[in-house]
Amino acid sequence: MRVIVAHAAKDLRVEEREKPTPGEGQVLVRLAAGGICGSDLHYYNHGGFGPVRLREPMILGHEVSGHVEAVGSGVKGLAAGDLVAVSPSRPCGTCRFCQKGQQNHCEAMRFYGSAMPFPHIQGAFREWLVADAAQCVPAHGLTAGQAAMAEPLSVVLHAAGRAGDLMGRRVLVTGCGPIGLLAVLVARAAGASVVATDIAAFTLDMAKRVGADAALNAAQADALAPYTAHKGTFDVLFECSGVQSALVSAIPALRPGAVIMQLGLGGDMTLPMQAITAKEIELRGSFRFHAEFATAVRLMQSGRIDVVPLITQTLPLDEAVRAFELASDRSQAVKAQIAFS
Amino acid sequence: MRVIVAHAAKDLRVEEREKPTPGEGQVLVRLAAGGICGSDLHYYNHGGFGPVRLREPMILGHEVSGHVEAVGSGVKGLAAGDLVAVSPSRPCGTCRFCQKGQQNHCEAMRFYGSAMPFPHIQGAFREWLVADAAQCVPAHGLTAGQAAMAEPLSVVLHAAGRAGDLMGRRVLVTGCGPIGLLAVLVARAAGASVVATDIAAFTLDMAKRVGADAALNAAQADALAPYTAHKGTFDVLFECSGVQSALVSAIPALRPGAVIMQLGLGGDMTLPMQAITAKEIELRGSFRFHAEFATAVRLMQSGRIDVVPLITQTLPLDEAVRAFELASDRSQAVKAQIAFS
Amino acid sequence: MRVIVAHAAKDLRVEEREKPTPGEGQVLVRLAAGGICGSDLHYYNHGGFGPVRLREPMILGHEVSGHVEAVGSGVKGLAAGDLVAVSPSRPCGTCRFCQKGQQNHCEAMRFYGSAMPFPHIQGAFREWLVADAAQCVPAHGLTAGQAAMAEPLSVVLHAAGRAGDLMGRRVLVTGCGPIGLLAVLVARAAGASVVATDIAAFTLDMAKRVGADAALNAAQADALAPYTAHKGTFDVLFECSGVQSALVSAIPALRPGAVIMQLGLGGDMTLPMQAITAKEIELRGSFRFHAEFATAVRLMQSGRIDVVPLITQTLPLDEAVRAFELASDRSQAVKAQIAFS
Amino acid sequence: MRVIVAHAAKDLRVEEREKPTPGEGQVLVRLAAGGICGSDLHYYNHGGFGPVRLREPMILGHEVSGHVEAVGSGVKGLAAGDLVAVSPSRPCGTCRFCQKGQQNHCEAMRFYGSAMPFPHIQGAFREWLVADAAQCVPAHGLTAGQAAMAEPLSVVLHAAGRAGDLMGRRVLVTGCGPIGLLAVLVARAAGASVVATDIAAFTLDMAKRVGADAALNAAQADALAPYTAHKGTFDVLFECSGVQSALVSAIPALRPGAVIMQLGLGGDMTLPMQAITAKEIELRGSFRFHAEFATAVRLMQSGRIDVVPLITQTLPLDEAVRAFELASDRSQAVKAQIAFS
Repeated sequence: MRVIVAHAAKDLRVEEREKPTPGEGQVLVRLAAGGICGSDLHYYNHGGFGPVRLREPMILGHEVSGHVEAVGSGVKGLAAGDLVAVSPSRPCGTCRFCQKGQQNHCEAMRFYGSAMPFPHIQGAFREWLVADAAQCVPAHGLTAGQAAMAEPLSVVLHAAGRAGDLMGRRVLVTGCGPIGLLAVLVARAAGASVVATDIAAFTLDMAKRVGADAALNAAQADALAPYTAHKGTFDVLFECSGVQSALVSAIPALRPGAVIMQLGLGGDMTLPMQAITAKEIELRGSFRFHAEFATAVRLMQSGRIDVVPLITQTLPLDEAVRAFELASDRSQAVKAQIAFS
Repeated sequence: MRVIVAHAAKDLRVEEREKPTPGEGQVLVRLAAGGICGSDLHYYNHGGFGPVRLREPMILGHEVSGHVEAVGSGVKGLAAGDLVAVSPSRPCGTCRFCQKGQQNHCEAMRFYGSAMPFPHIQGAFREWLVADAAQCVPAHGLTAGQAAMAEPLSVVLHAAGRAGDLMGRRVLVTGCGPIGLLAVLVARAAGASVVATDIAAFTLDMAKRVGADAALNAAQADALAPYTAHKGTFDVLFECSGVQSALVSAIPALRPGAVIMQLGLGGDMTLPMQAITAKEIELRGSFRFHAEFATAVRLMQSGRIDVVPLITQTLPLDEAVRAFELASDRSQAVKAQIAFS
Repeated sequence: MRVIVAHAAKDLRVEEREKPTPGEGQVLVRLAAGGICGSDLHYYNHGGFGPVRLREPMILGHEVSGHVEAVGSGVKGLAAGDLVAVSPSRPCGTCRFCQKGQQNHCEAMRFYGSAMPFPHIQGAFREWLVADAAQCVPAHGLTAGQAAMAEPLSVVLHAAGRAGDLMGRRVLVTGCGPIGLLAVLVARAAGASVVATDIAAFTLDMAKRVGADAALNAAQADALAPYTAHKGTFDVLFECSGVQSALVSAIPALRPGAVIMQLGLGGDMTLPMQAITAKEIELRGSFRFHAEFATAVRLMQSGRIDVVPLITQTLPLDEAVRAFELASDRSQAVKAQIAFS
Repeated sequence: MRVIVAHAAKDLRVEEREKPTPGEGQVLVRLAAGGICGSDLHYYNHGGFGPVRLREPMILGHEVSGHVEAVGSGVKGLAAGDLVAVSPSRPCGTCRFCQKGQQNHCEAMRFYGSAMPFPHIQGAFREWLVADAAQCVPAHGLTAGQAAMAEPLSVVLHAAGRAGDLMGRRVLVTGCGPIGLLAVLVARAAGASVVATDIAAFTLDMAKRVGADAALNAAQADALAPYTAHKGTFDVLFECSGVQSALVSAIPALRPGAVIMQLGLGGDMTLPMQAITAKEIELRGSFRFHAEFATAVRLMQSGRIDVVPLITQTLPLDEAVRAFELASDRSQAVKAQIAFS
């Protein structure tokens, strides 16, 4: 079968591997759709990010869906033909973090397509995938492309859950890449009013299309000025850009006691600690997800969250390199997906 | 001017009073709409409820809106002609509860139309009302009828805020009177899936119309049976009936750690404490509101919450008695309102 | 080896069983101390409680400590001779509740000495016990009797954790049995001021001895009158009696928004729902524990919690029946323990 | 009467002012003790901090206690001779933050001794002070020096309340000035185990004296190495130094999901956002206090918090300059106080 392998920066290859066989409690999935994530793009464009570097060839991909082709012994609730969203989160289940329900901090996590441990954790961009039944959430009623959005949606649901009640709250989203746009969708669906900022017209248009009450160009220095009166307006900031200036310039627009959910992964940032302290801002990192994956599928199935506008391109497996190039172009792509079947 | 006065059970009169004049920081409001609440109906039908009894004539009403006719000195942000929702919540602002932001527990609260202290706190069903500017929330874009729904909507927003994050949660609403139906609306708008129960076809139909995923007749003993497997399904119960059997029969359908928001005001209830303890259920009373009033107006203005289907009858002031009779008939009324102008 | 077996009400026998052998990941513990819990007493005195009844002989006991005698393969961090507190909590680790960190709601829990499933889960009152290494917390620096108190202390720590921050709060404890007295100790250690109520002079004296600021006889109708002014005083109630009158009479002494942690296991209770609703009381069940067990040991080791005064009797294994009789006498026993070695 | 006035950096004068008279609802206090705070020292040593600069002479001081000498009309609960702790927090009571119980963010706060608005808010270092009765908390049983510690203790109680439940938690305190040492005291009293770091032997000794389980010299690069295993140890960090390296070097020692309470007021800081995000650290600013003031007095009265060791120097009013010099010397002073009577 064919898989998509990153060898180094700008060296992405479609290669052959052995088709696997499901064991006890496992499922063989004929992959249907795979979304290209920002971390996939970092491996593709730069060979990694920060201290995380490719040291051996690694199959990419962790946003996938497909159809069950065969089930191993002991598997219940899944049958051949079912469309499933496959969670890339594979915690050990026994470490102290798993025991506390913090599987996203598992000490032995094997998250698909991660170069962090060595040997790397191989990814899910392959024609057939053997997964644990517990990773597979039935997704009837969705398209394969929607089902493959369960992963990034879970990332945002995890952050939203940590942000507290959003009903009737005023939310700011900085950075309208795929995660930022999903934050707009989730905040809207949770009853918030939403203002989004970015520096690209394409993504700002998309933000309005998926429900932002306002979409502002952050390149204009005073974009947030209308929100800074009376010590600030927004209750919650979803910081999805990973860019220092986005976070820093948003602080005057946050009300005292506001929460910043930091989703964007950037480098070090220099922050105005006096303002953060005096306004009692709460800056909370948010990382991955676990139990939210099933909720993500359910919210798409019930129509509460509509991710379809975000899937801007779908290319066949043999155009994988072109798909990665397109996905890298933020002037025309939100989420580019690969069709595996 | 004319006002609506309860003298005793089934003794409701439209009487004359002096038209008032606004003082400093006050506003004269030409009343437009007034919704009849369950407590108004208790005074009308029974002369009170529990230990709360009419001991002198009392103007009823606390769900009102109108147009600003004149403003006293020092009032800012309000002008003649503005439609305003008028909050009936008038806390002292200085007691220890007001100081903590718990104005709903104010030790000297003067909530419109309450027989609890003596002399009673007179209500707001009058052609002209003088209110503090701080009670008046501009409601442009709404109808007077919608603006008068800000009060019961605030009651539910207060409870929802205390219930915690509802995004992606499974919510059960027991009792589909006005408060229960608003709970359906709010839970939906906050991203929850919602099952509602009642014993009347009329209200169950309305529950589905305003967004309940399912509406079940609680008269059927096994109505909630599909939700009791695996220790129960629902994350949150909004108990809006005030009826013991509704609460008790819901407990097996709640998951361990679920939250019950008790909004229904009934008498004593005999509860299965062993189940509550072993399932670690959290039963939380919820009472009135304060800061939520402005949020309620905003959520209606933004279209997030549409209360229009709940306003089932609107009658002129001189048909006040008929309006109270209609409002008492749960087979055809959700919210009956009186048109004051 | 000898074990303590309940056959029926008032039919408790010391019997012989095979000495077990530890398997992989397991530990053989030479039992040292075992505390008699209220549920043990219910089996002994009444053959069960509520719907939970003895249907076959069951070894009692779940508050135990002992010395490691041998370790199975793969066990790390434990060595022969170590004093360990042994947690009776044995969740499956894989059900949806275990996955969320709610092991106390495990769908397949095998808690020592529980007649709830059938066949019953046999208890820990035996001379030698094979336990999973994960159940055993090293308890150096403690006596065996103290280590055996980790279990009831964990029950209270779990409830205290769910009650929220207690620092500087005003706490009421109703019912000064072992759990109530541990609640006094924990609330004190968490920075609260504490008032305790009971109807027995012996337990009230003990409450003062372990740190209650006041200990009041609830048999006096107006015992809590000094605390009812201004809508009530206490921020948190630990209800440890399981008696309806204790809970009901405490409500006027609770401030609006207060939390009731329900630890006492009684039958149905008739509650004043109007007061609970209007005061926005939060009644929270609390049941067992899991991760708190290691914390309990640590808090005793550091001297923050001193349980020694609560261990009122220690009898040898062959006086088991007398120990159960003594433990049943609340006029002279708080915690009676059996010395197994 | 005499007052202590800062004119510019290193220009502190004892000057004469008119003795004031209490109005309605006010109290005349004969000042007894006044503690010198870090912000007083910034005015004294540098003429201000950051953008906050002295622009006119300003009476310093906001940590004060004294004896009631006379009460204005309408004052209840206070009588001549009473020792009172006087809160410097004077919010307007009506702005949107006061209405929410967030008085520390009052839009019109008049906190004693603040150069931030102009004209400056004059401070409380004066022989007689007229204060609102609501600012005065009876402090019988305390010394005047202890009562004057209510203010900094309130700052820490506010932060601790925002940090959540500390019972059984592992707490790290970085920076052992007066606030850091109070954080050690409060965390201990709330049931936590506490490790403190600083770079001065004097303050580290004091940290151990007031209850730190360990006090480490942060000048040693690997001071926190024992706490970094398994993704980190501490549940909560009270950052009381305002120094970037203290915060940054603590992050590896924090467990995933840990809370940083930022109390230290420094300038901008460059933070490792990738670690904060991936570990889901919560960085929360904490600023001043309001309702905690009365709790602070109560905790000292009950003996739960003993601040006496922290009062290292007490000098008479006419030695004010020497007191400020001593207070600036962190090798011998924790809290220097001035005796006004």
